[in-house]
Amino acid sequence: MKTMQWEDNKLLLIDQTKLPDELTYFECKTYQDVIKAIKTMVVRGAPAIGVAAAFGMALAYISGDNPQKAAREIKSSRPTAVNLFWAVDRVLGSDSPVDEAIKMYDEDIKTNKSIGAYGSKIIDDGDTILTHCNAGALACVDYGTALGVIRTAFKEGKNISVVCNETRPLCQGARLSVWEMQQDKIPVELIVDSAAGYLMQTGAIDKVVIGADRVAQGGVANKIGSLMVALAANRFNIPFYVAAPKSTFDYQNSIYDVEIEERNPEEVLYFGTSRLAPAETIIRNPAFDIVPDDLITGIITEEGIIKPF
Amino acid sequence: MKTMQWEDNKLLLIDQTKLPDELTYFECKTYQDVIKAIKTMVVRGAPAIGVAAAFGMALAYISGDNPQKAAREIKSSRPTAVNLFWAVDRVLGSDSPVDEAIKMYDEDIKTNKSIGAYGSKIIDDGDTILTHCNAGALACVDYGTALGVIRTAFKEGKNISVVCNETRPLCQGARLSVWEMQQDKIPVELIVDSAAGYLMQTGAIDKVVIGADRVAQGGVANKIGSLMVALAANRFNIPFYVAAPKSTFDYQNSIYDVEIEERNPEEVLYFGTSRLAPAETIIRNPAFDIVPDDLITGIITEEGIIKPF
Repeated sequence: MKTMQWEDNKLLLIDQTKLPDELTYFECKTYQDVIKAIKTMVVRGAPAIGVAAAFGMALAYISGDNPQKAAREIKSSRPTAVNLFWAVDRVLGSDSPVDEAIKMYDEDIKTNKSIGAYGSKIIDDGDTILTHCNAGALACVDYGTALGVIRTAFKEGKNISVVCNETRPLCQGARLSVWEMQQDKIPVELIVDSAAGYLMQTGAIDKVVIGADRVAQGGVANKIGSLMVALAANRFNIPFYVAAPKSTFDYQNSIYDVEIEERNPEEVLYFGTSRLAPAETIIRNPAFDIVPDDLITGIITEEGIIKPF
Repeated sequence: MKTMQWEDNKLLLIDQTKLPDELTYFECKTYQDVIKAIKTMVVRGAPAIGVAAAFGMALAYISGDNPQKAAREIKSSRPTAVNLFWAVDRVLGSDSPVDEAIKMYDEDIKTNKSIGAYGSKIIDDGDTILTHCNAGALACVDYGTALGVIRTAFKEGKNISVVCNETRPLCQGARLSVWEMQQDKIPVELIVDSAAGYLMQTGAIDKVVIGADRVAQGGVANKIGSLMVALAANRFNIPFYVAAPKSTFDYQNSIYDVEIEERNPEEVLYFGTSRLAPAETIIRNPAFDIVPDDLITGIITEEGIIKPF
């Protein structure tokens, strides 16, 4: 199952806001459709956003839109994941936009398989691995980064199990990661985000593997809550790994200079049709936080496991 | 507004499962009704559970039930908060059960006012205070422990604001603490639990004040997620206080020997009528975790601020 498909000059995206209850596709005929999909999180996850953005640029070329204008607009759809900028610039600099986007699509799958192969080495038989948010197939074209590591270890016959943080507010852990693991018959349990510390405190977790929206000088930006998971792992001496393709690397900037997106308060206030707090409540909804380098055991890339820079 | 009222030999409890949308009362005519209210979290919060349990014992005496049997059953309604055991034993040893329960009711309010007076000293003008779960009026007879500290500081004219963790899975922070602060016109913002670390990382939080379900040797048991908040506070050098009456103190046991209640998985799986993850998902739902003593700046009691023991 691929998160996205390119067919007849259209980009089909699994609508991740509808999972796990409905498997439906969101059709993008224009780059504006892609922007809408990225903003509303029909497609999310740094690698998937990158490849979708590449196809967005391809659609702009096909429609005869001004590529510079399309590039600017696509880049402004979400601020934190660096893949978006990298992907847009790569297509912008290419002679054959559609071919370049397709190439990036194929590369993404290969990259994830390679991350899985390197990452699997740090997974031991019997491990219970905690993950946060969804750095799975659905965050990429296929296979996944953090969940790709878990998939590879499982395929190699290691007897492992997974604990997924639900990942409030949009619950990508509960809706997407749990579902992906269930599809692959990998043993999985769900917890609320704030139970991760307790599970570590009681010895139930052996490793943590998460994804990254951006790796930069001094640490990693990833889904809100990653910092607190890293602090708990550090307290209880649990190895904490980040699985991330090099397309998420930003060598130029300090991670503390990266813009952290603040999203719509309604994401927190409503769950389905149920309202969580009084309607007039003031809410802060930062989408990411920063895991400082000293809390990271290693970064699993397609070229091997490295230290933060 | 009182969390509970004793009228005509009946205990009326605000039904906290219905707040903030509906203010309704749950009527207890028998000790079994009280047990049901405690188990289903119609009434929750260690001090409130204690006083409700005391009235449960009073109801057993009024009905002519076997007091030892009632005591045993009430004590087994929830395992972690020590107030439950303390309150039941106190009524069991008394000559006048109803009067004793009423005395405990009155004492609880006085205790909280005293906690507020001591605690307010550590709150500075301009502080933003983060709290987790609801250690408010609704967790006690009235006024609150952690929120009592905040109320007192605010009444003294300090310019403060509050950040409430939503507190998954049952969202006592979003439903109860936010609502209590709004009733008192104390500036309040709501965040998902996993955003607490980010707010501390960016300097938005000056102090943390939470409640306790049990204070014992080596630390404090409190609502799931308290540990991760404490770890983040420690990382960013933010004072971390626990506000707790001495009725929550257990000098006999190590905090690591306290039974941590695991509650119904459906609390995590459903929010209102919305299901969060595939129906067959395996869920762990621990209700509490342990904050080790080295992470606690001080424990605010009705007799002053002390160090963990």
